[in-house]
Amino acid sequence: MIKSSCLDNKYRFNELLTGILDAEDKELGRAISLIENRDKLAYEILKNLYGKFNPAYLIGITGPPGAGKSTLIDSLLTDWLKENKKIAVIAVDPSSQISGGAFLGDRIRMKNITNHKNVFIRSMATRGSTGGLNPAVYDTVILLSAAGFDMIVIETVGVGQTEIDIVRLADTSVVVAVPEAGDEIQIFKSDLMEVGDIFVLNKADLPGAAKMEIMINQLFNLKSKTNRNLDISWKPQLVKTSTYEKYGIDELRNKIIEHYNFLKESRLFELNHDQVIEKQLIYLLEEKIYTDFIGKIRNCDTYKQLLENIVSGQITPHQAADQLLKKNLKL
Amino acid sequence: MIKSSCLDNKYRFNELLTGILDAEDKELGRAISLIENRDKLAYEILKNLYGKFNPAYLIGITGPPGAGKSTLIDSLLTDWLKENKKIAVIAVDPSSQISGGAFLGDRIRMKNITNHKNVFIRSMATRGSTGGLNPAVYDTVILLSAAGFDMIVIETVGVGQTEIDIVRLADTSVVVAVPEAGDEIQIFKSDLMEVGDIFVLNKADLPGAAKMEIMINQLFNLKSKTNRNLDISWKPQLVKTSTYEKYGIDELRNKIIEHYNFLKESRLFELNHDQVIEKQLIYLLEEKIYTDFIGKIRNCDTYKQLLENIVSGQITPHQAADQLLKKNLKL
Repeated sequence: MIKSSCLDNKYRFNELLTGILDAEDKELGRAISLIENRDKLAYEILKNLYGKFNPAYLIGITGPPGAGKSTLIDSLLTDWLKENKKIAVIAVDPSSQISGGAFLGDRIRMKNITNHKNVFIRSMATRGSTGGLNPAVYDTVILLSAAGFDMIVIETVGVGQTEIDIVRLADTSVVVAVPEAGDEIQIFKSDLMEVGDIFVLNKADLPGAAKMEIMINQLFNLKSKTNRNLDISWKPQLVKTSTYEKYGIDELRNKIIEHYNFLKESRLFELNHDQVIEKQLIYLLEEKIYTDFIGKIRNCDTYKQLLENIVSGQITPHQAADQLLKKNLKL
Repeated sequence: MIKSSCLDNKYRFNELLTGILDAEDKELGRAISLIENRDKLAYEILKNLYGKFNPAYLIGITGPPGAGKSTLIDSLLTDWLKENKKIAVIAVDPSSQISGGAFLGDRIRMKNITNHKNVFIRSMATRGSTGGLNPAVYDTVILLSAAGFDMIVIETVGVGQTEIDIVRLADTSVVVAVPEAGDEIQIFKSDLMEVGDIFVLNKADLPGAAKMEIMINQLFNLKSKTNRNLDISWKPQLVKTSTYEKYGIDELRNKIIEHYNFLKESRLFELNHDQVIEKQLIYLLEEKIYTDFIGKIRNCDTYKQLLENIVSGQITPHQAADQLLKKNLKL
């Protein structure tokens, strides 16, 4: 019987596990909080769940603030829920400070699905202690897969690199653009064009939509020219939607299913999951090195001395880093 | 005489150093490329420059795509250049793939300053190999300080955590918002409210500006309440600007100078630079661990075996990470 300060005494480990396997909101919420706090109990939970489930289908949805991602997710999921699917939504937030339950704003925009018995919504911080993608996000994907969710939708606000990593983690990546997204050159600056499987031009009833559509199609052409030597059998596709005028949602849903079938038939689904597992291992190595190693180094006298030497201009930060690592790594 | 494959034979190390100290575009450009490629020669350059200059004043300017940051920078700098200041602009880009010179778009929007003899503009990738802030950004800050730039403006597209880290690196952080930035709840989600010294409501002539102003002021109140136990003598301030109707720029410039004087008088300027140096050391430790340590681990048989065991569900990624680190770290 393992206990943790985060759990009441009443809350026994097995009850927690049973609650997770039954996809109970309360137990899932507790487990994710443990995962976010990097509590030892979370690792025990994951150990008990690991290897005993089929991976859920991961859909990444990203785009600039105000692109209408939450409303799109609400519309998309409404129909899948009619087919009795169990769906989790992870709203990944660039802030490191807010967590625990989805924001009020998300809840408002996902009003049709928020209280549905087969839906679980949770927000999480993007980044872990190391600066890279928060390893808690993928731990949560494992937890939710084990809890029997068929689909996990990961929503991110995406221009940063960390958000792009989350999109890469998904089986199907949906990139949402809007006509009035301001600085049109921005989309060129972004790796999102490289990682998107399906592009959505949302709010396609607004002025500027036609111009944006031409631009996205030009980028598709550019991309297919760049990749002409690779055997890429899935071509990124553009869907025009308007949640206001209610069109395009069925087409988007069909494109997602089409991509899912493509992944399954080409065995890219399994390949992607293996790659995600390796990425998670690397993230965990980074996280553990950061906590166990850099954390300890920072308390050493040598570290403090070297820092003073950098500040006084005697050595460069590079030289100091080399000296610290030479002493502490076995290679 | 140190040579590198990135340099022509003609290009001698001392000539490169002299060119950097003379702030020649060509040599600065070469040196930054070496820094970005993490070339050994870059470390030699930094070693030769380190500790022999006064730190430049770092201004961070961040905000969503299309907020008008580049145009603001263009207007701000025009006047400072009349005072014979030497100014560098680093446009930090969420994309990891594009680098080498500023984008066409930036050049267009900074048309008044792009070709000025005392201005150097360069774009860089946000992120290094480790997922954290690209250590090359701060290496470049050192290089440009040594080259005698009085001010370095770091422009980022900011909602991600990595962008916020760059803002934290700056002495003065300017956060740019616009009335029509879409999803208004977004600004609440962001740590930017915490790190901004000066807030700009740009395009303040557009509809929705009054509403946005009320909201930002509410956030200021909220923040000052949260921080009431801290002795914070600088209160974040809001400046309304319009580069189209041309107002607010002088006020913004004055606020920045006011903040600079505040930093100098309170000695926070030195304190901030010491903190930045420590952060850079940590980033470099992470980078070197990633390259030297994780890079080597990935080629080991043990690593490959453990990865197979994770994929087959026998052990969790956490267990594998623990095993790999136990073997290779001295603690």
